[in-house]
Amino acid sequence: MSARRLRLIEPFHAMALLARARRLEAEGHSVVHMEIGEPDFVTPRPIVEAGMRALDGGQVHYTPATGLPQLRDALAGYYRDHFGVEVDPRRILVTPGASGALMLALALFVESGVEVMMTDPGYPCNRNFVYLFDGTPVAVPVGAEQRYQLTPALLQQYWSERTRCLLVASPSNPTGTRIESGVLSELHRLVRARGGHMIVDEIYQSLYYGERPQTALALGDDLFVINSFSKYFGMTGWRLGWLVAPPEYVERLDVLAQNLYLAAPTPAQHAALAAFTDDSLEILEQRRHEYRRRRDYLLPALRRIGFDIPVEPDGAFYLYADCSRFSADSFAFANALLEEAGVALTPGIDFGRYRAETHLRIAYTTSQDRLQEGVERIAAFVDRLAGSEPGSTSGK
Amino acid sequence: MSARRLRLIEPFHAMALLARARRLEAEGHSVVHMEIGEPDFVTPRPIVEAGMRALDGGQVHYTPATGLPQLRDALAGYYRDHFGVEVDPRRILVTPGASGALMLALALFVESGVEVMMTDPGYPCNRNFVYLFDGTPVAVPVGAEQRYQLTPALLQQYWSERTRCLLVASPSNPTGTRIESGVLSELHRLVRARGGHMIVDEIYQSLYYGERPQTALALGDDLFVINSFSKYFGMTGWRLGWLVAPPEYVERLDVLAQNLYLAAPTPAQHAALAAFTDDSLEILEQRRHEYRRRRDYLLPALRRIGFDIPVEPDGAFYLYADCSRFSADSFAFANALLEEAGVALTPGIDFGRYRAETHLRIAYTTSQDRLQEGVERIAAFVDRLAGSEPGSTSGK
Repeated sequence: MSARRLRLIEPFHAMALLARARRLEAEGHSVVHMEIGEPDFVTPRPIVEAGMRALDGGQVHYTPATGLPQLRDALAGYYRDHFGVEVDPRRILVTPGASGALMLALALFVESGVEVMMTDPGYPCNRNFVYLFDGTPVAVPVGAEQRYQLTPALLQQYWSERTRCLLVASPSNPTGTRIESGVLSELHRLVRARGGHMIVDEIYQSLYYGERPQTALALGDDLFVINSFSKYFGMTGWRLGWLVAPPEYVERLDVLAQNLYLAAPTPAQHAALAAFTDDSLEILEQRRHEYRRRRDYLLPALRRIGFDIPVEPDGAFYLYADCSRFSADSFAFANALLEEAGVALTPGIDFGRYRAETHLRIAYTTSQDRLQEGVERIAAFVDRLAGSEPGSTSGK
Repeated sequence: MSARRLRLIEPFHAMALLARARRLEAEGHSVVHMEIGEPDFVTPRPIVEAGMRALDGGQVHYTPATGLPQLRDALAGYYRDHFGVEVDPRRILVTPGASGALMLALALFVESGVEVMMTDPGYPCNRNFVYLFDGTPVAVPVGAEQRYQLTPALLQQYWSERTRCLLVASPSNPTGTRIESGVLSELHRLVRARGGHMIVDEIYQSLYYGERPQTALALGDDLFVINSFSKYFGMTGWRLGWLVAPPEYVERLDVLAQNLYLAAPTPAQHAALAAFTDDSLEILEQRRHEYRRRRDYLLPALRRIGFDIPVEPDGAFYLYADCSRFSADSFAFANALLEEAGVALTPGIDFGRYRAETHLRIAYTTSQDRLQEGVERIAAFVDRLAGSEPGSTSGK
C-alpha cells in the first residue's frame, strides 16, 4: 500500500512527449524542440573554468549545509549591486537547485490540513511539493485578465483559515508574465495581515525584457524568496539554487538542510562564485538580449498563425498561447503536432486545470533558425487541420 | 505556526561540536578531528579528470530524472562484476546523494500513521526523514549482544500493524558492524511475510575489512537498496548516490524524482562513469586498506585506554565506544575532551537514545599520525579525569 501522495503527484505530460520526441529523432525524424524548460546555451565559460579549477584543486568535500560562506556573501553582493537591496548573507541558504529551496520553505509550514495558495496555471512542482508534505494546494484560476497572476481580490476570495502560505512566481512559468510591483506589495500586506507567509519564486527574475524588475526582498525581511543559478546563469545540470529566508527561520532551515540533503554540490558552489564577474555577466546579458530577440520574433509570428496570446510576456523564455481556434484539446493538439509536423510543445494540462485544454506553453530555448522552422511547421500543420479535419477545430 | 515535524527533527549535536572545533582552530588551538563522517582523501584523480572533461565538453544540462543511462548501466555492471548479481539497470535510479535515494524510498510509503522500524543507535537522518513525511520511526534498541543490528526476534517483538518498512544499514553508521547474511535473509523473509518493505542502506558496503560482503540485492528483487558514491568512492561533495528499487515502483519513483529534485548533478554523473575503471578501483582499494590499518591501530589503542568496544567493527570508518568507565554523560565528555584536550568526537545522542549517554562515535577519517596524536590526547585526558575529578567517573 503506497502513501496517499502518490495518487496526487502526477507525472509531467511533457516528459512522455519528450520521450516520444526522442524516439522520433532516433528513427531519423526531425523535431523542433519548443517544449524544453532550460537554456539551450551551455554554462558561460568563466563559470565552467571556475568549476574545473575547483575540481582540480580538490574542492570535493561537503560544504556547510547553508552553503559556502563566500557564495552567500557573493549573493548578498548581487542583491546590493544589482537591486540596491541589503540582504544579510546569514539569511541566504545555498540549496541543491531551486527544488531544494522550495522543499525547505514548504517543509517549514506544510502538513496535513494546511493550504498553500498558488496560481493555476503554475509550475507543476509547486502543487506536488505541497502534496509531498500532505498539504492541500489551493490553485486559484488566473487568466489573461489578471496577467496570469494572483490579485488582491482573488487572494481575499480564496484565503481560508487553513491557508498558511501564498506562493507566487514572477515571472511565471508557464506564462512569462510578472506581478506588477504595486500588486506584489498589496499581496504581501494582505498575507501579513492574515498571519501567513509569502514565498516568491524569482527563478526567472533576471530574464526580463522590459524594465528591470525589483526583487520582492525590497518589501521586507519577512518573505521567503527562491532563486536559482539554472535559468539566467545557465547552470541547470549543476543543481544550484538559493533561498532567502526571514532571519528567525534560518536556524530551523539549517537543521532541515542537514537532514534532507546535507549540502548543495560543492563543485557547483565554487563554480558559481564566478557567476557575478564582469566576464560572466557580459555573456549572460548577451544571452538575455538573444532571448528577447527570439520572443520578439516568436510572439507576433504565433499571433499571425492564429494563436491568442493576449498578454505580452515580459520575462522567462515561455509564451502561453490559447489554441482554441484550432482545438479544444491542447494535449491531443500537442501530440498530433509532434507526430505529424515534428514540433514539440507542452500541453496546458501540465500547469493546472484552468483552461488547460485550450492552452499550450511554447518555449524559445532553441535557436532563431529552429524557431523559424518550428513556426513554418506549425503554420503548415494548422493549415492542414483547417483544410482537412474540420472536427479538430471544434474548440473554436 | 510551524509544521509539527520541526519539533521532532533535531539538529546534529556533532554540528555544534564541529563549529566549536572550528572556532578553537581559528583561535590557534590544535584539534584532532575524529568526528567527521567523510573520507579525508580527495576524489580519485581519474574521477576528477572525468568530471573536468565533462565540464569542458559542455555536459551541463539536465539528465533524465532517473539518471544518465550509461551510469545506470555501469552500476548494473558493478553489481555483476563485483557481486555476481544481475540487476536490471532500469531498476537503478541515480540520485542526489544517498539522501535523495532515502527520500524517494520513504516518500513511497511513509505518511501519518505509518511506522518505520530501524535501529537505535542508527544514522540520525533515517528517523528525521520519517518525521519529514509525518510517519513514526520505531527505534529498536540494539546493543553489542546483537552486534548493534536488528535480529529476527526483535523484529517480531517490535513489528506492529502500522509498520510498513524496515530500514537497516550494513555496515552501520555509527557502529561499523554488518548484518550477518543469514540474519539479513531471515529479516527479509519476515518482512515479506508481513507485507512490508525492506530498505537496506549499503552506503558503506565496499568499505569492508574482513570477508567481502554480499549485497542484499542477492536476496530478491523486492528490496530497496540505497548506496552512494560518497564514502567508498570518495565523492561526498559531488552529491551522488543511487537507489535500486523493485521493478513495479520505478515509474512512481521517476515521477517523484522529477518533482523533488529534477535530476542528480550532471557533472557528478559524468565523473562517476570513471569510478569503475581499473585505475580508480586500484586507488580506492589502497584507501580501503589504509582504513583497515587505521582501524587495526585505533581499536586496540582505545581498548587499552579503557573504552569498551565489545564488537569488532568490520566496515565503514567508525568505532562505537562505551565510555562509561570515564563518564555517565558522553555529551559532556565529548565537550570536555574538545575544550581541554583538543579532540573532537561525536556523542551517542546523535544516533538515538539507547545507551547514548555512555557511547561515543570515533571516526578514523584522518591520518595515522593524527590518530596517534588523538589517542595520546585522549589517554592523557582520561588520566587527568581519573586523578583530579572522581566525580566525572560516576558512570563506572
